[in-house]
Amino acid sequence: MAEPNPSVVIVGGGFAGVGCAKALAEHDVDVTLIDRNNFHQFQPLLYQVATAQASPADVATPLRDLFRKHPRVTVKKATVTHVDPATRTVSTAEGAEFSGDYLVLAAGTGPNFFGVPGADEHALPLYALRDATRLRDRVFELFEEADTTPEVIEQGALTFVIVGGGPTGVETAGALIDLVDDVLAARFHDLDVATAARVVVVDHGEALLRPFSESAHEYVARVLEDRGVELWLGRGVAAVHADRVELADGTSIPTRCVVWAGGVSPTPLGLADELTTGRGPRLATAADLTLVGHPRVYAIGDVAQIADHDGTVLPQLGSVALQAGTHAGHNIRRHAAGRDTEPFRYHDKGIMAMIGRNAAIAELGAHRHELHGHLAFTAWLGVHALLMSGTRERVDLFVSWAWDYFTKNRAPSIVESTDGIDWDDAGS
Amino acid sequence: MAEPNPSVVIVGGGFAGVGCAKALAEHDVDVTLIDRNNFHQFQPLLYQVATAQASPADVATPLRDLFRKHPRVTVKKATVTHVDPATRTVSTAEGAEFSGDYLVLAAGTGPNFFGVPGADEHALPLYALRDATRLRDRVFELFEEADTTPEVIEQGALTFVIVGGGPTGVETAGALIDLVDDVLAARFHDLDVATAARVVVVDHGEALLRPFSESAHEYVARVLEDRGVELWLGRGVAAVHADRVELADGTSIPTRCVVWAGGVSPTPLGLADELTTGRGPRLATAADLTLVGHPRVYAIGDVAQIADHDGTVLPQLGSVALQAGTHAGHNIRRHAAGRDTEPFRYHDKGIMAMIGRNAAIAELGAHRHELHGHLAFTAWLGVHALLMSGTRERVDLFVSWAWDYFTKNRAPSIVESTDGIDWDDAGS
Repeated sequence: MAEPNPSVVIVGGGFAGVGCAKALAEHDVDVTLIDRNNFHQFQPLLYQVATAQASPADVATPLRDLFRKHPRVTVKKATVTHVDPATRTVSTAEGAEFSGDYLVLAAGTGPNFFGVPGADEHALPLYALRDATRLRDRVFELFEEADTTPEVIEQGALTFVIVGGGPTGVETAGALIDLVDDVLAARFHDLDVATAARVVVVDHGEALLRPFSESAHEYVARVLEDRGVELWLGRGVAAVHADRVELADGTSIPTRCVVWAGGVSPTPLGLADELTTGRGPRLATAADLTLVGHPRVYAIGDVAQIADHDGTVLPQLGSVALQAGTHAGHNIRRHAAGRDTEPFRYHDKGIMAMIGRNAAIAELGAHRHELHGHLAFTAWLGVHALLMSGTRERVDLFVSWAWDYFTKNRAPSIVESTDGIDWDDAGS
Repeated sequence: MAEPNPSVVIVGGGFAGVGCAKALAEHDVDVTLIDRNNFHQFQPLLYQVATAQASPADVATPLRDLFRKHPRVTVKKATVTHVDPATRTVSTAEGAEFSGDYLVLAAGTGPNFFGVPGADEHALPLYALRDATRLRDRVFELFEEADTTPEVIEQGALTFVIVGGGPTGVETAGALIDLVDDVLAARFHDLDVATAARVVVVDHGEALLRPFSESAHEYVARVLEDRGVELWLGRGVAAVHADRVELADGTSIPTRCVVWAGGVSPTPLGLADELTTGRGPRLATAADLTLVGHPRVYAIGDVAQIADHDGTVLPQLGSVALQAGTHAGHNIRRHAAGRDTEPFRYHDKGIMAMIGRNAAIAELGAHRHELHGHLAFTAWLGVHALLMSGTRERVDLFVSWAWDYFTKNRAPSIVESTDGIDWDDAGS
């Protein structure tokens, strides 16, 4: 039984949702791609926006631009609040409903505060573009405040605490210490930035970057410590306050900037508990990436627990999401043509993390060939530039990186006045 | 009587203030440069940020970066609320005071709503970087809303009204119609953008770009009208409401986006009325750019009424501000060395305005050689790129322009969700 012109509703415009839409865009399929933002964000580089190495437009592309040559792909900016897998219908906060012959759930994740008191209110996550600009603004505002009122330094105004030693935490810590030492120290003539500013990484585990090898753990720790990052490992966070972070062992670190890189939880879609599994919990999928029990509903990307062909649960990575999106599109076309779907098989090209200027680690290919330092830094730049969806972003970002690298200069680090001259608030 | 190491306090980090600080930076002078933002903005290009042709970081440079190699120039982010010219002391909203042997007032302007009811509350000015990002966000949000709820189009959701036909108004109108026709029409598959969107320029005068020649007025009007901009000339604005703009003749235009390009007023500095003159009113200056009656206080840039050597009052242009800043620095050094100050003389290199893709006008040199169209467009690009303070911005902006020009694509046009998923508000 073949369906000639199936319709597909995709919830989420991240790597998974865009990958799926692209796999369908050239075929006789009507696609509705729904996202609560009108852009696709390059999530692995948000920390660069947070540390003023990149502008928001460098790491985000309007979704409608990605599909402007595909009239059968319609993008809708809406927030999905409820999903009915039986009727393949989604409802939005704006009061609209969308349904299709197939439904793809790729709504991604947000931060998981694990119930730590105050984290929700006082910590800054790093999962959305707005998180990144908010963190960037906070960093620069704190330096401005310390310049105006140096007394606040003792109260932790220039102490930046990162909770979580995974890739996001490590990349943010490395980029922050570079920003402090290379850029801000030269800018603030009245501050002794080198001694006043602190970057601290707290993790309840004993190693940074756990998905990497043991030698990588040591390399990362050495690089960060050499640059002056304090590593507080094996210590859980008990609470986050406006003026300090409290650890499980009772010690406190005075700070007004806590970056939450401590874990993720799936975007809530109002689905029944029996459709979820594992940590998070995430949506449970069959081998062909369909939601268990719903052969016309797919669950892909970070919102889903995805297993490789051998049953291994795959990590929540951009490359897994992208490949799963493409595969879901492929299976939808097979199913619509009356053919059997195929199980997902992940092609592991490796993992990478940037630790700072000239330091990165990469474990490439199935045999985990390991690269450290300069070479890994270059590989990291190249791979990320190639992964980006739009050429414009690629060119801009390279200009940005090259400029940053050669001049230790950062244009995006601007802070606007929030003071009270009347016309500032006009029209807002 | 020579002062060996005079101190200079400069209020304002625009073209005038930065020009003055640069003229002093290489000499034995202690400079404190105060601005309520920590960046210098390239004001003539704000309309490009508003129409997503440029990112904020493309048109702004951190002030501290401009002077990071000049340890005797200290930048302070503070809002000056009061100036005492007798003691050359300024007070800030943050409670600090700064005083120097010389004081330079270069605080710039904000919008002048001329008492039009509702303008302050509902119209969007275009004088600060935040104005530009706010206008950009408004434009894209309105298109998203029209895509979700097409009924709002009849209520003026896609009608953009620009009040004021000077350079800011004309450049904004031209860039907006380009954005609508070249970019948004291709993006919104469910909207008939060409018929639904309107760009209207309202001005109480009969000509656009009054400082230019009569043939320029005709050229600009023809180009804008050919592209579909509606010109409502000879009509004053009586009031601005949330859902419409009301004209003096009683007609109303339904709109939810009114751009205020209608005039400027000097930043209030709490100075006595007898120190001001003319329209605005602006600070009154002597021929050497000192504030009348205060030989150690300079008033430059848009906050001041500046006359040329022959007594002609000069227009409020970036080039006048920059030259006045350099001249004030020069006079401060002469005065500190016990020599006479010199009168200001403006070197008029011409005026330019961009009307849109491939259309601009330029009147160059003292003889007002006139350029229209393609050639003026190229001249405009070149001159503005050269005027920009930082090389980084120049490179980025050229990438941005070139990309825009060849692909009709705009990366900075992203809109973030303002809907209520919990973690979005964490930490704010």
